[in-house]
Order: sequence, then C-alpha cells, then structure tokens
Amino acid sequence: MEKHVVKMRDEDNVAIALHDIAKGTRIEGGITVNDNIPQAHKVALVDVPKGGSIFRYGVVLGYAKEDIHPGDWINEDSLILPKSPELHELEYGTNVDAKLPEPTRTTFMGYDVPGSEYAGTRNILGIHTTVQCVVGILNVAVEQMKKELLPKYPHVDDIVVISHGYGCGVAIDAREAYIPIREIRNITKNPNFGGQLMVVGLGCEKLTPDRIMDPEDINDDNFLSFQDHHGFKAIMAALFEMAEKKLKVLDQRRRTELPLSKLSVGFQCGGSDAFSGVTANPAAGYASDMLVSAGGTTMFSEVTEVRDGVPFIANRVLDKPNCDKLAKEMSWYDDYLKDGGVDRSANPTPGNRAGGLSTIVEKSMGSIAKSGTAPISQVVSAGEIPTKHGLIFDATPAGDFTCGPMQLASGMGLEVFVTGRGTPYNLEAAPVIKVCSRTDLKEMWQDLIDINAGTIATGEKTIAEVGREIFEKIVAVASGEKPVAEDLGLFNDIVIFNPAPMT
Amino acid sequence: MEKHVVKMRDEDNVAIALHDIAKGTRIEGGITVNDNIPQAHKVALVDVPKGGSIFRYGVVLGYAKEDIHPGDWINEDSLILPKSPELHELEYGTNVDAKLPEPTRTTFMGYDVPGSEYAGTRNILGIHTTVQCVVGILNVAVEQMKKELLPKYPHVDDIVVISHGYGCGVAIDAREAYIPIREIRNITKNPNFGGQLMVVGLGCEKLTPDRIMDPEDINDDNFLSFQDHHGFKAIMAALFEMAEKKLKVLDQRRRTELPLSKLSVGFQCGGSDAFSGVTANPAAGYASDMLVSAGGTTMFSEVTEVRDGVPFIANRVLDKPNCDKLAKEMSWYDDYLKDGGVDRSANPTPGNRAGGLSTIVEKSMGSIAKSGTAPISQVVSAGEIPTKHGLIFDATPAGDFTCGPMQLASGMGLEVFVTGRGTPYNLEAAPVIKVCSRTDLKEMWQDLIDINAGTIATGEKTIAEVGREIFEKIVAVASGEKPVAEDLGLFNDIVIFNPAPMT
Ligand SMILES: [Ca+2]
Ligand SMILES: [Ca+2]
Ligand SMILES: [Ca+2]
Ligand SMILES: [Ca+2]
Ligand SMILES: [Ca+2]
Repeated sequence: MEKHVVKMRDEDNVAIALHDIAKGTRIEGGITVNDNIPQAHKVALVDVPKGGSIFRYGVVLGYAKEDIHPGDWINEDSLILPKSPELHELEYGTNVDAKLPEPTRTTFMGYDVPGSEYAGTRNILGIHTTVQCVVGILNVAVEQMKKELLPKYPHVDDIVVISHGYGCGVAIDAREAYIPIREIRNITKNPNFGGQLMVVGLGCEKLTPDRIMDPEDINDDNFLSFQDHHGFKAIMAALFEMAEKKLKVLDQRRRTELPLSKLSVGFQCGGSDAFSGVTANPAAGYASDMLVSAGGTTMFSEVTEVRDGVPFIANRVLDKPNCDKLAKEMSWYDDYLKDGGVDRSANPTPGNRAGGLSTIVEKSMGSIAKSGTAPISQVVSAGEIPTKHGLIFDATPAGDFTCGPMQLASGMGLEVFVTGRGTPYNLEAAPVIKVCSRTDLKEMWQDLIDINAGTIATGEKTIAEVGREIFEKIVAVASGEKPVAEDLGLFNDIVIFNPAPMT
Repeated sequence: MEKHVVKMRDEDNVAIALHDIAKGTRIEGGITVNDNIPQAHKVALVDVPKGGSIFRYGVVLGYAKEDIHPGDWINEDSLILPKSPELHELEYGTNVDAKLPEPTRTTFMGYDVPGSEYAGTRNILGIHTTVQCVVGILNVAVEQMKKELLPKYPHVDDIVVISHGYGCGVAIDAREAYIPIREIRNITKNPNFGGQLMVVGLGCEKLTPDRIMDPEDINDDNFLSFQDHHGFKAIMAALFEMAEKKLKVLDQRRRTELPLSKLSVGFQCGGSDAFSGVTANPAAGYASDMLVSAGGTTMFSEVTEVRDGVPFIANRVLDKPNCDKLAKEMSWYDDYLKDGGVDRSANPTPGNRAGGLSTIVEKSMGSIAKSGTAPISQVVSAGEIPTKHGLIFDATPAGDFTCGPMQLASGMGLEVFVTGRGTPYNLEAAPVIKVCSRTDLKEMWQDLIDINAGTIATGEKTIAEVGREIFEKIVAVASGEKPVAEDLGLFNDIVIFNPAPMT
C-alpha cells in the first residue's frame, strides 16, 4: 500500500501527511481522512475528546478545541495553545528515561589524543592565528608547505589555517569579548589537531597570545610573531621550521580502534524546509540516540531555533545547575537580539503555517528533533568544551557557518548537517556529513548529498532505518571515509561569533 | 649638523624630538634645550607667554600654564587643555584655505569604467557572494579558472572571490543591517571590477540578490544560484560559463592615460607607534594634498581614532550638511560603543604619554595628519560611494581589516597604509602601498615595506620629499606597478563590519 503519513513518536496521536491527501482517502491503520490534508500537515490518528492533548514529537502541541476524530485535519484552528513557561519556571529531569536504540557497533578507528576526552577523526596540522593581519603570508606559506612539506609526512592528512576576522580593531575587554576569545582558544584544542599547537601572531594585535594559549604553552616552539622576524623570507623560514617540527610529531600518529565514547559529533540543520522536521531531523536524532547509547558525545545547538521549545529541552536536562544554565543562555540571547532592535518572531510565519507548523513550539520541535530522545547530560555556552559525555546542548547561534566553528571549539570530530533546500557547507578542520530531507534534493544534488532521508517520506525506509544509516556513516567518516564535500575539497571560512563592538 | 627635531607645520610653535635630546644640546634654529627631552616629545621653538596657545599640526593643543621659553620641554604638565566642543557645537568651514602642494604629475595609466567617476587600477573579474555557504565550491571553481580560463584572457589581471561571513544567520531587517548590506553591495561597484557584475548565491539565504543588486541587473547573465543547478558538476559548469563571458568583456580593456581626477585612494594607518604621527602620517598627508590638488579623490577614515580631534576635521568641512553628517557618524559610533559596554578612553594612556602625546586631541591629530590640509569636500557613511572629488571622510571603523573593505566599497582603486610596528596587510581587489614610520622597521622588513618615512626622522628627507615619493608611488601603482605585498601574493580576507545581531 502507498505510504500516506508518518508518525514521529510512538506516543503521538497525530501523523504527518507525506503528500496532499484527498478527503476520503484510506490511510495507514485503516483510517479514512475526513478533510483534504495538505502535505506536511497533521492528521488525527485516534479520538481526542474536547480539551484532550495533541501529541507530536512526544510533546503537547495544544489542546483540542472540539472533539477530534481519527482522520481529522489538525491545524492552528483546532488547537488551544498551552501556556509557555517562563525561563525561570523551567522544569528539569521530567523526561530523562527514554529507551535509546541499540548501537550497531561500539568502536571506530580514530586518532587518540593523550589527555583529551575526545579522539580525532583526522590528523591535521592546525595553524591558528591571533589576528587576520597574518593570513596573507600564512596562506602563501601553507600553499608551499602543502607542496613541499606535506608529502614528506604521509600520515598527516592536511595543514589547515584557522583564519578569522577577529583579533584587532576590537574592544578586547568588552563585556562580550570572552565569546570570540573562548571560541578561538578552544578551536586550538580540537582533537583533529592532535594536541599539537602552532599559533601565529603579528605582534601589535589586541588578541595577545596569553588570551588564547595556556601560560606554559607560550614559547618559541608554539608561538611565532611576525614582528620578531626580519621580513618575508625570514617569516616564511620560521613558519616552515615550526610547521615541520609539528608535522614530524603528527606523522607518528596512527588510527586505532577506540570506543565510541572517544567520539564527539556536532549536529545542526540549515536551509530547512517543511520536511526537515519530518524526515531528516528525526533520523539524525535516532543516530544521535544510538551514539549516546554507545557512550559517545553528540551536541545540538542553534539557540534562536530551539528557543520556543525550551521547556522540552529543559525536561530532558538531568540536574538543576544545567537547567539554570540553559535558562541563562536563552535569556542572554533574548537580550542580545533585543539590544540589536530585533524582535523574536512571536508566531509561526504564514509560510510556516502553510507548511503545517501550527505553533511556534511545533516549529522549534522540528529543530530539536535532531537531538533524539536522550537525556541532556550538560548545557555548555557557545564554544565551551563539555566535561561530560552523552547529549550536550551547546548554546550557539543557529547560522550554519557561525554554529559550525563553535561546535569545532566544543571539540567535535565531525558534523552531521541536515538540509532541506541544500547547502555545500563543509569545514576544513572537521568533515561534514550532509543529510537531506527530500528525495527531490538528493536527485538534484546527487554529488553533494551523503544521505537521503527523503526515503522516509516515500515510505521506502523508516526513521529508524535512516537513523541507522546516518549512524553507520558517522562511524565510517570518523574512521577516515570522506563525505562528498570533503572529497570534492569544499571548505568554508571560519566565521567567529563576535557580539562585542568592533573599534 | 645632526637633525634633532621635526616641525609638523609652519604655524607650529613646537617641534618633535627625533631622539632623546640631552639638556644643553643645541638644536635647529640655534635653540639650546633646557630639559632632557624624550624621543617623540615636544620642545618649544619660541617664547609663549602664560596663557598663550601651543600649536602642533597647526591646531591648539592647549594653553601655557606658565611662561614658556625656547628649548623648554612641553608635556601634559605644561598645558591647560582647551574645552573640547560637543558634537552639536562643531564649527565648519573655518579652515578650508590651505595652500596645497603642486602635483608633480596630473595623469595616470588606468582602466576607465564607463559611467563611473573612478577608474580602475587593476582589471579584475570580481565574483561576489550573497552568503558564505557558496564559498567552498566557488574557491574550487576559481582555482581551476585561474589555471584554465585566465591564461586565455591575458589582459585580465586576476579573478577574485569576495568571500565574507555575512548573508545568512543574521537579522536581515535589523536596525543596523543596512551597514553590512551597503558594504557588500558597493564592493560590487568597485572600479577595479570594470563594471562587470557576477554574483553567486545559494538560494535560501537571507541576503537575497535584490538587496545587493540593482533590479535591472538581476538576471541569468549576472546572478547564479546554486540551488537552481543540478549538483556540483552543473554548478561548476554554470560558474565557468558566466565567468568566461565576463572575462571576454574584461579582456578588451586597456590602460589609457587618464586625469588623476579619475583616481580614488584610501588612506589608513595601523600598528601605529609614537613616530607614525611624526613621519609617515604627515608625509602621507602631503601626498594626499598633492592628489587633491591634481583633482583626485582621497579618503581617510577610522572613526574611533580621529574622534577626539573631530573639531579639527569639522573646521575643514566645506558646508553644514557635511558637518552635520560628521557629527551624526561620530554620535552613532559613540552609541554603538556604549551599547557594547565599552567606554571611549577619556585620556591618553600612560603609554601614549610616555610616547609624547600630551592630550587625547594630540593623539587623534596623529591619525588625522594623513589627511593633509585640504578642505573636506564630503563626509560619507562607512562604505558609501562619494559623489564629490577631493578629500573625503569615510566614517569607517579603525580596525585595519575592517576599514580596508569599507574603503573598497567606497570605490578606492588602491590604498596607502601607514604602519609603525609593521603589517603585511593587502587586499586582493586593490593593491596596498606600505609606508613605515621608522627606518628600523624598513631595515627589519625590507621586503615588506614600500616606502620608508623614517628618513624624515633621521634628517635625510623632509616631509615634503617623502610626501612626493608617496605620491609618485601612488601614481605608479595606480598605473600597474605592484607594491611589495601584491608582488608576493599576500592577500587578506574581506572582513565585513556587521554591528547587527547574528541569529
Ligand atoms: Ca596546555
Ligand atoms: Ca537550523
Ligand atoms: Ca544552522
Ligand atoms: Ca589607524
Ligand atoms: Ca587602521
């Protein structure tokens, strides 16, 4: 039989139309639909008496205005909205007992980093910068290093410059300056750089090395300042000398079989469509649950997107300190937007409603879906390094190229990126796996998408099946397989999140 | 005789010590110094009675606390500070009759752009982007284009991607969003791109093409959206096809002899030291005056640096509307810093005082010195395109890599960059000439500095002589000569100034 609807969770009493369904059509479970149901909209699966709860993603979207019958179309007119709790009233720990899917494997082939919680998925010489001014010479040096040095060290995958637009012309002691500074500092610690540190500065910039390096690391082995060297040729020679020392060490590294507890994976979505929350995000969430179940660490992020679903993040947080931190991060972002004269949109847009999203909560739940059902073991500020394993909420902006570098700072070895409309986004320092929400996009962008979750909508596969496929791809990529964007050599710039003034 | 001091302007009654001068030393003009004068500090040249004005850079730094005699050391203890006028009290048009130096030539060999006030100094295919997401594929395409396409079009200098961190994950309708949007929009109009327009987008970004392109330009000849194409190979083919069409047109261009009124030059300083305001900035100012005298356009910028000298910018502004705009721009930046919790430092720092800068005004005047003495024909907001020729104040941030792209947006064909401590900064889309303030740096960074203004301090050359040297270099570089950074292929990223929230 043709597949008409998909249910997000067992406890849901609605399902989502995979295509426009004509009134009178007989769908799964022997239900006959009582209205014309537009694609991506909700249809009732059971009787819900007036005042009864409507569940999607396992959460209450609203209460029935009138008695609802199986096959009814449920839209914003059918629902009385639940009161959204204030940030200071969030409840934690009330939804932390989800049964997680079994992982199909428990190890991967990674690069262990002595003293680090996480292992690398790549073996990269990262060259970090205190300021944009040095990037011109550095790029010339690295282009030449890739030709002349890298072939001598075949066990090193790449040399990557962490180029950014911060470091000078900034109010370095501004209230919010700690955010970009922490990000740049923690990127140096990403496990894909194997614990080797190489930082390049100019000499008169405001972001001095002590702001991004530990005191014991600031020495001539790890830090090089252009103004200490006699011109271009001398700078080039110094860069080559330092790089070669680091390459020699990195070249000794080998992949070994490691438990998945050594792996950290970032999850985000971008260019979302009405199906992202139906197919790809729930499948990514399933994969996340499998990883957590295997002892791994997964991070989800995107504060502005999940903001209206925050009670359903809070109720998965294990303890009060992390719940308080969640509230604080949300509140910080509320204030930041308000300071910029921006209002958080209070309702779904007409486009969202047409796409079947009846409430702002439902919209956020589509994004939150990629976090699966696991309890949240820790909430960290944007770019902080978690100290716990399991599911982490990393409170970053939602913008794709702002979120990615922040997750890099938080230690991810690779990223899973869910897309509806399609993006070729990738990071040079950590591979990005692309999962699309619709078969249309996979067909259109065959050579840019790794996994098609649109098969959930066509009925070819279940959420669990695609979830397992994503999990297997994560393990493969963590073990060295190149996702399409890495294979094509597509790399985006590092865009640092700087909410403080530029001077 | 050894040179001990340098005077900034004929009307000054103090000179600046070029090195530490011992008490009793006989200096220029037969004056014997009455104190130990530290390097870069001020020494009186004439009698100034108690209450009399102390002039440096032709402006009043303060009033004598006691009678001052030739050879006296003048520091912050010797001066009563003048009251700094409020922004709403600024006087304009009171200092607009400076006699400008004669230009030694009046033409250059540039690329005329039909319909544009300014000519190009380079013949570049600029590929502009609406969003960072497209940069991965675009960089791969351009690397290949440079190998396969560019050699077929020998009259085209380069293909340059304008990659930036704006375009999505931003509050696109935020109060201040017009600032980055105007910048990206106006960069497309830079004369070095020869009036050819190629814009690349993803398809779901917030910075839609209508925000940075004129309505009549938005068509398949000029704008390409990745989501309209069938995957990587199709996108690459579309990029190549559009680029080749533009290259064919650009390849027809030739340098012709043009009046200097067709040239726009940006001036900025960075990594400044106590001598920047003594040697390199005044010499740059002299060159700027020569260009203005020849009918050219020069821009100076760096709001936070010139802020405390604003009365001495205002009195060179020709009319009230531009004076009001100057006040408005200063006030905007005051508010922006205050919103970020940053206080504008109210006094020179101990380091500034040790460097001989007695007042905040004196400090700003060092930066303003690079604007010379010409009247200011127009004040423009950061990244606006001037509509007048002559000296322009372009109200950008002071940060080197934030100011440069803004001046690019305002139409500069090249930039003159004055440095004390040294920076290899350069832009791929417009060459940057490096002028250093001290002979030490020129000796240290021989292959990274174009012109040494330190010869003013050693007495080998006068401000006017180095000024003429800078002017000649500007004309040569505008006509095709490569300054050192361009010759070495050093290029910095485009860092967009975005004061509005990221989402
Ligand atoms: Ca350490
Ligand atoms: Ca998202
Ligand atoms: Ca995102
Ligand atoms: Ca400056
Ligand atoms: Ca500057």
